Amino acid sequence: MDKFKVTFLPENKTIEVAKDTTILSAAISAGVSINSACGGDGVCGKCKVKIKSGKAEQIHLACQSPVHSDLEVEVPPESRLDEKVIELKDLYSASEDIDASKALKDQAFKHSPLSAKFFLKLPKPNLDDSISDLERLYRELRKLQSFPVMQTGLTNIRQLGELLRDSDWQVTVTLGKRNDTVEIVLVEPGDTSGKNYGMAFDIGTTTISGQLVDLNTMQVLGTKASYNKQASFGSDVISRIIYAHEEGGLEKLHSAVIETMNHMIHELTTEHNVDLNDVTCMLCAGNTTMMHLLLSVDPTYIRKEPYVPTANFLPVVRAKEAGVNINPRGLLSCVPGVSSYVGGDTTSGVLSSGLYKEEELSILIDIGTNGEICLGNKDFLVACAASAGPAFEGSGLTCGMRASRGAIQEVKINPKDLKVTPETIGNAKPVGICGSGYIDLIAEMLKAGIIDKAGKIIAENERVRVSDMGKEFVIVDDIVINEADIENLKRAKAAIYSAGAILVKHMGLEMDAVKKIFIAGGFGTSLDVEKAIEIGLLPDLPRKRFKFIGNSSLAGARQIILSVDAQKCADEIARKITYFELSVDPGYMDQYMAALFFPHTDLKRFPTVKF
Amino acid sequence: MDKFKVTFLPENKTIEVAKDTTILSAAISAGVSINSACGGDGVCGKCKVKIKSGKAEQIHLACQSPVHSDLEVEVPPESRLDEKVIELKDLYSASEDIDASKALKDQAFKHSPLSAKFFLKLPKPNLDDSISDLERLYRELRKLQSFPVMQTGLTNIRQLGELLRDSDWQVTVTLGKRNDTVEIVLVEPGDTSGKNYGMAFDIGTTTISGQLVDLNTMQVLGTKASYNKQASFGSDVISRIIYAHEEGGLEKLHSAVIETMNHMIHELTTEHNVDLNDVTCMLCAGNTTMMHLLLSVDPTYIRKEPYVPTANFLPVVRAKEAGVNINPRGLLSCVPGVSSYVGGDTTSGVLSSGLYKEEELSILIDIGTNGEICLGNKDFLVACAASAGPAFEGSGLTCGMRASRGAIQEVKINPKDLKVTPETIGNAKPVGICGSGYIDLIAEMLKAGIIDKAGKIIAENERVRVSDMGKEFVIVDDIVINEADIENLKRAKAAIYSAGAILVKHMGLEMDAVKKIFIAGGFGTSLDVEKAIEIGLLPDLPRKRFKFIGNSSLAGARQIILSVDAQKCADEIARKITYFELSVDPGYMDQYMAALFFPHTDLKRFPTVKF
Repeated sequence: MDKFKVTFLPENKTIEVAKDTTILSAAISAGVSINSACGGDGVCGKCKVKIKSGKAEQIHLACQSPVHSDLEVEVPPESRLDEKVIELKDLYSASEDIDASKALKDQAFKHSPLSAKFFLKLPKPNLDDSISDLERLYRELRKLQSFPVMQTGLTNIRQLGELLRDSDWQVTVTLGKRNDTVEIVLVEPGDTSGKNYGMAFDIGTTTISGQLVDLNTMQVLGTKASYNKQASFGSDVISRIIYAHEEGGLEKLHSAVIETMNHMIHELTTEHNVDLNDVTCMLCAGNTTMMHLLLSVDPTYIRKEPYVPTANFLPVVRAKEAGVNINPRGLLSCVPGVSSYVGGDTTSGVLSSGLYKEEELSILIDIGTNGEICLGNKDFLVACAASAGPAFEGSGLTCGMRASRGAIQEVKINPKDLKVTPETIGNAKPVGICGSGYIDLIAEMLKAGIIDKAGKIIAENERVRVSDMGKEFVIVDDIVINEADIENLKRAKAAIYSAGAILVKHMGLEMDAVKKIFIAGGFGTSLDVEKAIEIGLLPDLPRKRFKFIGNSSLAGARQIILSVDAQKCADEIARKITYFELSVDPGYMDQYMAALFFPHTDLKRFPTVKF
Repeated sequence: MDKFKVTFLPENKTIEVAKDTTILSAAISAGVSINSACGGDGVCGKCKVKIKSGKAEQIHLACQSPVHSDLEVEVPPESRLDEKVIELKDLYSASEDIDASKALKDQAFKHSPLSAKFFLKLPKPNLDDSISDLERLYRELRKLQSFPVMQTGLTNIRQLGELLRDSDWQVTVTLGKRNDTVEIVLVEPGDTSGKNYGMAFDIGTTTISGQLVDLNTMQVLGTKASYNKQASFGSDVISRIIYAHEEGGLEKLHSAVIETMNHMIHELTTEHNVDLNDVTCMLCAGNTTMMHLLLSVDPTYIRKEPYVPTANFLPVVRAKEAGVNINPRGLLSCVPGVSSYVGGDTTSGVLSSGLYKEEELSILIDIGTNGEICLGNKDFLVACAASAGPAFEGSGLTCGMRASRGAIQEVKINPKDLKVTPETIGNAKPVGICGSGYIDLIAEMLKAGIIDKAGKIIAENERVRVSDMGKEFVIVDDIVINEADIENLKRAKAAIYSAGAILVKHMGLEMDAVKKIFIAGGFGTSLDVEKAIEIGLLPDLPRKRFKFIGNSSLAGARQIILSVDAQKCADEIARKITYFELSVDPGYMDQYMAALFFPHTDLKRFPTVKF
């Protein structure tokens, strides 16, 4: 078989590949991350690269270009995935997120972390008290707390005899929740009980958010977010599932998410001076596909009718088994999911929002690449999924970015001269637009008459230009929004709105019966509910019914890692939610088509919205 | 470092070793098994080898001979460990041992094997019934039986989606008892539920006995015994523990017992046409040191005051983890022990004897290398250990052998001409003497006046010869017993008798208060209680109180592997037994010294014994 050398610039990484391998595949193999929203179908145009031959340079789509000779390929910045891990500290209000104890208290969950350390001074054995080392440990632990079922693996037992004697019978035992049992995870010499940390993760299709939590004090030491490295293999869960089915695909997707997480863990622990060995557990919430890929479970059947995942309740595994860099014996747990398209992130969000115990009918709308809607109260819970795409996470749009420093999160447009006043996160120089910024922007453009209700740019002004991607509106410097972006955002908002609408309809209710609307998503500090209603993303209900709760999946993960009670509650929520599959729902397509207008084709649904 | 080549004959195996390595160590490394009862101390004289240099041959003790040059070493048959696995079928009465269901029924234990197979025809998923694959499996299993806690490891989950679909939703699930949970051990396509087997083992210091059990029908397919290969490292638990502490020692001891077991498993499954993958669980009973070595747990502290094992309740491990060749995902469980010197074999014996539920005071005397005595009834249980050595297992004696074909198991001596009439197992040509044969022999020699009460040979007859090992008495052809053998047997019987006596005394009782005496041990079909009393091994009580129950540890293991109820009962027994440590008992040495006579120095204790 012919082999050719492909060199990627500016890294100067060279890899040898077989003839006809695409440049995108070669880049993935070489560890060069290229954006590929469509997963290699050649339609998103995100993977443009410059192929150098002699002095000439040609632009090609990496996913559509087979290698036929040795090549030099330059990957321009705009075709790269943003791999930077960002600090989210500034985006959370201190009271809620630095001290997690309040949230636990509000829900009456006891502080009982998924892994807890106990310092023990064991009585030394003598001829009158010669029970075995392990029983001695159990006896002492049971003086502190009742543990009906305790287990200890062979690795710890093999070290136990010498360890107890070398440490003069003073040891710290880490007890971990492992499915329905309690396990001795670690036995360490001396008193290390003061240092016990956990990592809570929300693993999104596009964005991964992680928090380092002090399991003793319930303080959040730091929060980070990073684009999921799996994005090189496609932007939505469907393209990931297809890729997983290819030779070696599952392993690559698994490695990509683990790499992203390990990078975040490394940054958080380094910054906060935490030894990786003192991180004893990890709790992950994410959609069902993400959870399958996290544990290298084939997700193939998730996308095949009748859309059945292998497992919604995944077993607890050892960190080493999954490949995550915390204490190798530490335990990794997943929040249980409901179905193929309503995952543990929804369960976690329902938990943290408190929706499951409300008297009044409430709805949780989680706006992400895989959007989820849950309707219910303390008596029932129903949910569905809406494939919105990554637009509201700032991905797949010309100038999209996450809610991080420099992102435009608010916009004002003067209807007279169309002058734009953007406000950025951290008041930094604008570098892009995040989800909440786009919502503002569309609403302001509508009000200023820059676009029509179908999303076409109709204004004529120096700020309106024509590029090779069609018409675009300039916000500031090189930061623009074009018609393709607007179309993208329109489809995303239509998917979410119509999913909520059909869920309410299915329960025989009117939208007005919904008394509380919890809005979740990685929008940063805020989402302007008024504007979200104006563009038709959220239903037109009295504004005081809305509550923006940010990343509710991460908030739930944090509660669960700190409380076995919260975990039990999450298990019950996952079992209680009834799932509606929209893709086979005959009414859904109509609802969706009707929503492909700003705010909607049926303006009676949005009585307060007037442009 | 100088290296020399040592070649062992007749195998012609050559190994290169460092200068000063002993020939015994070289033999172990080369896989040549040499008897070494004293564990290399140079006192037992069992490891004689012929060192060839030029035409001359010299006899040396392998354990005392450092290698200083290239050597040719011949290991004569008498210095070899008997590695043959023997068939024990003929030795067990068909009613009790071929069909294990009666024993379960007698104890009211339900048939519920430690691993059970269930054939499931799963309803195929559809849009109205789209629960996950794993939940579908659980739902179907729970229709058959209530399983409060079920777990499934990642390995099975990873294969589940494809396996269910490839097998058209018809699969066989093996459920295994894993500590306090039930685990999905295997999922196999189609109906394999008819083939489910287990291995029950009694792992003795000297002898390992194993049974292949059909877990569905409760039939015992075959029983084998083999000398424990660990015997190369010393004949008793103390020498094994010392060896375990040497560099690499623990691993070697672990491998030796696993090799012995694997050899037995191979022979049993081959003979009975059982696929190794259909052997789904294994249950092991053995003394505490044996159980530590089985799982590679350091036994060091067992022999150090205050004699504390690492664990009496050992965790269930996967067969592959332990190295045993059954289904690699099969589960290996151990019967829990009581203390360092009263192990799971005692627990198992107490279970199978039924002693734990007797109204009357009973005693169980298990005559093995590490002898154990348990006294009690349904209200209390106390136990102690007696280090008897391997004599009654036919090991460490000039012509000793196991209770197998050709072993002299009964002896009559005509007091007039001292003519001996031996009876062998299987009526075969005599090849050696087993434990019950030695008991007969001593009793008959006492009655015929061949030996005195101290065990010295006093008769003058053509059958009495003098060899380099002192005086010996010829039974038939080359089969003899010498004064060293008699001394060995006297110490063994004194250890066991005095342990029982002191246990009864400790409870403030007289020997006559014991209404039932269960005698256990690997004696084959029978033990002549009358003769065992005559030599002072058993107490002089009315004969109808005695019941010979054979290998009670193996019998208990068989019950446990067939019934979760029996396992629960064994756990309770292990927790209930109170242990007495004789080595620190001030009265024990006096009792032992007084018992170093046939039958005893205090003849009032043996009123019915008259020579």
